[in-house]
Amino acid sequence: MPAAPASRTPIDDLCAQLDEIALIDPHSHINPHAAASENLADILGYHYYTELAHSAGMPREKIEAPDISPKEKVGRIVEGLAQLDNTIQVKWLLDLCRKFFDFNDDRLTTDNWERLYDHSEKLMAAPTWEATVLEKSKLEAVFLTNDFDDPLTGFDTKKYIPCLRTDDLVFHLQKPEVRQRLAKATGFDCATPAKLNHAIGHLFRHFEGKGAKACAISLPPDFEPIPVSHLEAEGPLRAAYSGATLTAEQSRTLSQFVFWTIAEFCSEHHLPFDLMIGVNRRVYESGVYQGLDLFDQRVSLFQYRRLFNSFPRVKFPVSVLAHASNMELVSYAWIFPNVVVNGHWWYSNIPAFIEPDCRSRLEAVPRNKIIGYYSDMYKLEFGWPKFQMYRRVLAKVLFEDFVAGRGWSEERAFDLGRQILRGNVETIFPGVS
Amino acid sequence: MPAAPASRTPIDDLCAQLDEIALIDPHSHINPHAAASENLADILGYHYYTELAHSAGMPREKIEAPDISPKEKVGRIVEGLAQLDNTIQVKWLLDLCRKFFDFNDDRLTTDNWERLYDHSEKLMAAPTWEATVLEKSKLEAVFLTNDFDDPLTGFDTKKYIPCLRTDDLVFHLQKPEVRQRLAKATGFDCATPAKLNHAIGHLFRHFEGKGAKACAISLPPDFEPIPVSHLEAEGPLRAAYSGATLTAEQSRTLSQFVFWTIAEFCSEHHLPFDLMIGVNRRVYESGVYQGLDLFDQRVSLFQYRRLFNSFPRVKFPVSVLAHASNMELVSYAWIFPNVVVNGHWWYSNIPAFIEPDCRSRLEAVPRNKIIGYYSDMYKLEFGWPKFQMYRRVLAKVLFEDFVAGRGWSEERAFDLGRQILRGNVETIFPGVS
Amino acid sequence: MPAAPASRTPIDDLCAQLDEIALIDPHSHINPHAAASENLADILGYHYYTELAHSAGMPREKIEAPDISPKEKVGRIVEGLAQLDNTIQVKWLLDLCRKFFDFNDDRLTTDNWERLYDHSEKLMAAPTWEATVLEKSKLEAVFLTNDFDDPLTGFDTKKYIPCLRTDDLVFHLQKPEVRQRLAKATGFDCATPAKLNHAIGHLFRHFEGKGAKACAISLPPDFEPIPVSHLEAEGPLRAAYSGATLTAEQSRTLSQFVFWTIAEFCSEHHLPFDLMIGVNRRVYESGVYQGLDLFDQRVSLFQYRRLFNSFPRVKFPVSVLAHASNMELVSYAWIFPNVVVNGHWWYSNIPAFIEPDCRSRLEAVPRNKIIGYYSDMYKLEFGWPKFQMYRRVLAKVLFEDFVAGRGWSEERAFDLGRQILRGNVETIFPGVS
Repeated sequence: MPAAPASRTPIDDLCAQLDEIALIDPHSHINPHAAASENLADILGYHYYTELAHSAGMPREKIEAPDISPKEKVGRIVEGLAQLDNTIQVKWLLDLCRKFFDFNDDRLTTDNWERLYDHSEKLMAAPTWEATVLEKSKLEAVFLTNDFDDPLTGFDTKKYIPCLRTDDLVFHLQKPEVRQRLAKATGFDCATPAKLNHAIGHLFRHFEGKGAKACAISLPPDFEPIPVSHLEAEGPLRAAYSGATLTAEQSRTLSQFVFWTIAEFCSEHHLPFDLMIGVNRRVYESGVYQGLDLFDQRVSLFQYRRLFNSFPRVKFPVSVLAHASNMELVSYAWIFPNVVVNGHWWYSNIPAFIEPDCRSRLEAVPRNKIIGYYSDMYKLEFGWPKFQMYRRVLAKVLFEDFVAGRGWSEERAFDLGRQILRGNVETIFPGVS
Repeated sequence: MPAAPASRTPIDDLCAQLDEIALIDPHSHINPHAAASENLADILGYHYYTELAHSAGMPREKIEAPDISPKEKVGRIVEGLAQLDNTIQVKWLLDLCRKFFDFNDDRLTTDNWERLYDHSEKLMAAPTWEATVLEKSKLEAVFLTNDFDDPLTGFDTKKYIPCLRTDDLVFHLQKPEVRQRLAKATGFDCATPAKLNHAIGHLFRHFEGKGAKACAISLPPDFEPIPVSHLEAEGPLRAAYSGATLTAEQSRTLSQFVFWTIAEFCSEHHLPFDLMIGVNRRVYESGVYQGLDLFDQRVSLFQYRRLFNSFPRVKFPVSVLAHASNMELVSYAWIFPNVVVNGHWWYSNIPAFIEPDCRSRLEAVPRNKIIGYYSDMYKLEFGWPKFQMYRRVLAKVLFEDFVAGRGWSEERAFDLGRQILRGNVETIFPGVS
Repeated sequence: MPAAPASRTPIDDLCAQLDEIALIDPHSHINPHAAASENLADILGYHYYTELAHSAGMPREKIEAPDISPKEKVGRIVEGLAQLDNTIQVKWLLDLCRKFFDFNDDRLTTDNWERLYDHSEKLMAAPTWEATVLEKSKLEAVFLTNDFDDPLTGFDTKKYIPCLRTDDLVFHLQKPEVRQRLAKATGFDCATPAKLNHAIGHLFRHFEGKGAKACAISLPPDFEPIPVSHLEAEGPLRAAYSGATLTAEQSRTLSQFVFWTIAEFCSEHHLPFDLMIGVNRRVYESGVYQGLDLFDQRVSLFQYRRLFNSFPRVKFPVSVLAHASNMELVSYAWIFPNVVVNGHWWYSNIPAFIEPDCRSRLEAVPRNKIIGYYSDMYKLEFGWPKFQMYRRVLAKVLFEDFVAGRGWSEERAFDLGRQILRGNVETIFPGVS
């Protein structure tokens, strides 16, 4: 017996209004050459489902067997869903299946998945599928996260907005393949700080020329950006280019040098620099694809004080991985004009954390400095259910704290919601609409 | 004027259903030879009441005077309750007095305690008292926390399930009495790593033979488990056995060696290893009995990455002391198949922390990896009010987030609650029912 | 269209009762010689408005131009309010304008501010203005935060209660002007530990003679109080007095010595020692006046264990800056008789953090050890809206957790609220009423 539908509440009404706002998604991992899914395997292959199914007991070999068909893979993951139906991630899945694939059941099970697979595959085969998803999701544009050597050709950069991802440059110059990719992308040998600086400048001009609107990086909890002189950087950089194994100290110095150089180019090119703070990579070595990373909550934005002080003209939209970091983020955005609060990232991206985080941000951060949400998605179909989860929380906070709590009209509360969801993306990343 | 009773809510209904579930309590400090209380002094002697009364201003000497009778002791602690009636711990006390002792007043005061004392003492004198408490509390079985040299005889190990507590082995081998107890329990001199390993194996076989279903340990915030070779352990171990005072470094190495050895035996014997992470012992030197310990929130599960990676076959039910650690626990349990979320421990065991913790766990951890609650009790009478506190929070979260929030039927929400409260105890500790 | 006024709730009723309680504000930065404001510039000059307007995009030069009139300054800051109307700080502003200045609009804008400025200036010009504000705010007395060399003359110390602020002594003896002020205030050269001790004793006698009821200090996250011998302190102190630049180590030793000495005098003089833990000064170097400070959440009350153990007779009302520290504060106050929970400080002073903090404190700290709130205000007009924000949260928690949650009568819940708001200030700071 399903619960009787409750009568429509003011929160429902406010949420319905927020649903009508056309969006620009300020951070995703969409591949613009294959933005939408082709079958349910693309959807159930999202790391959330594979890592949760694995965590609940399914062997990695069963999920990642190299020779199974997409359909077989979906069948296997569906077996794991029975122990995951409480998770918000499975709610995203059901919501998107209802939205896009005419799904009407309570759960996705070993009994009903195959029908859904076949039906959805047909829908996704339509040449208009990508456009359909964008339209139904009210997504006008989506930020990408591009490798530094991405040619950025063959897609509409107004709809899929380039963003320069700099993780490889900052943290992986020791890897020969990264140095080779850099050489190939820029035509430069970069074995000295001056040459590397020149090469990075080349990348910025390339990205800017292709309409990039942001630079982005994810950072480990122990990273502390400080300026590094060419003299200090020279040894570690030469060591990296000679193929030597760097000491922890050299490695840190090199990362700090490259990071600071990138911040300088962000300043010169007026590009916001998205900082995604707090991830430790490869913590669970035997995890499924993209399910290896975790974090250490012992991190502080205090580590970024020199950066925020040194680049007053660079906007830093900051995401934090640990819920415990939210209060620092609120406080630093309240004080530093160049610190912007940005979305709810990864392990923090569940309503239990979004709600208190959203509440504090709306109470203490200037309204023009809050980017409410981004999807972080790999496939377009996830934009709608993820934003929907956020809109629901946002409507609740707007109603409880502003309409009921402060006597604001619903129009006024809605206007605040619109600015958080859409308006600030336009003003913080100028030129996106 | 008491508040008018509110009309019965759907949360009340769901809570009432959860109350019917027969429980296996997965962690307690029950003494199986004296499981139930004999008088109110056993109940008001629980460290929560003595430490809170002391904190509120009562001198320790008044509470712990060596020559006072149980009744006199209760009279004294009751004087302190006036400043504690806001605490949830006093709510446990009143709830259990109402449940078991026909108590009907709003408060326990200097005017009404004596009648309660006398009446309850009569009830507790019944030979069936222990059985009565278990039955009224719907407790089918209760895990113990046994010293490594406990003979585990003279009680029903199906009802009171042994659990090997390893704190003394890991952290106190420097103490002569611990080494003597170990020698006596195993018949081994353990002055070399190989011998110590052998002795610990002996303890595991003894506990397994007596039906132990878990191993457990509480850990300080700065502990980081890593493997230690016999060669590295030899010096510190010999130093300990020679009666020398160990350096901090030696002490840490020895603890890490013993801890890792225990994890190896847990793997070999298929015993879950309960980790209770984050307590600093003896922080308040002048506190009342068992009221000396506190914590340092600067701790991370990142410290346990090597352990979780190295023992994929050992289940680690993890409890964290600091509320700030909950998000890491949720995330590590979401990624690592062998990390299980376990209850709400000590300073975190109040509704203000349980509710947000429960909410996030139910949203992001596979449902088969959440152990909702354990009592941590010293006397059986506390099982009911502590579980009742938890069930109330659980019913609220299940109703708000699942029934109202996701349109689940009440049956489906109840099934999730039952798995959290009971089912997972059976699957995570096989053989307990 | 404003929202229709909701019907009056039991929380409204309870809040209205709490509003009737006459208050003693246990911590403020009021200047007793100019306690109330003279014009709106005194009010909008509060650092919350200038730093938020600056954070939202207004150049510091525009806000802090040296030659602008008070009225011009208000006009400029009002321009910035449009992007701040979501913040709770702007709600304080509107609430106080409604309470004291007959303001009735929804917002303060470039269109209506001038009328408000002129009208309020007339009201504030009344010689009875200060008394009017105190009376309307139901403030019987207000604690100050006095420099160590404050003569404490020319005001009613029963109404404006002196409190010895010790930051300069503990952290700034290296500054020549601080040493000069100390010499002038005490008549002592303090270049040796014995002399410094003697001088500090002199300050305590002066403050005690003038009716001081507390000592206070704000502390950085990395401070750890430990006892320092005169022998250890001598070098650093002599170095400071010789005008040398101290090493980090010397500086820390000197701070620890002075801090511990002050704690000793608090013990001797029976003065509570307010600890405000966790602020990093001058993190944002280019911020507006008083808008430079932030924090690092990596701090623990564990750092204060030796202090709490060493001074059992000193009450330590503790405020924490980071919301993440609240659980430690609850736990340390639950265990240590001399640790008192004190208010909601600075970046934590917004309802999104106050509500969960208040909830946990009322559930686990003895009721006689909770100081609910202090204003931290610089001008009297802020007492009412800030306490009002707190009372609203308190009423919500009292109703939900105690009346609805535990079946308490509203009278009983109100009594708890009164003790938190008023009664404990009297018992923790004896002699204040």
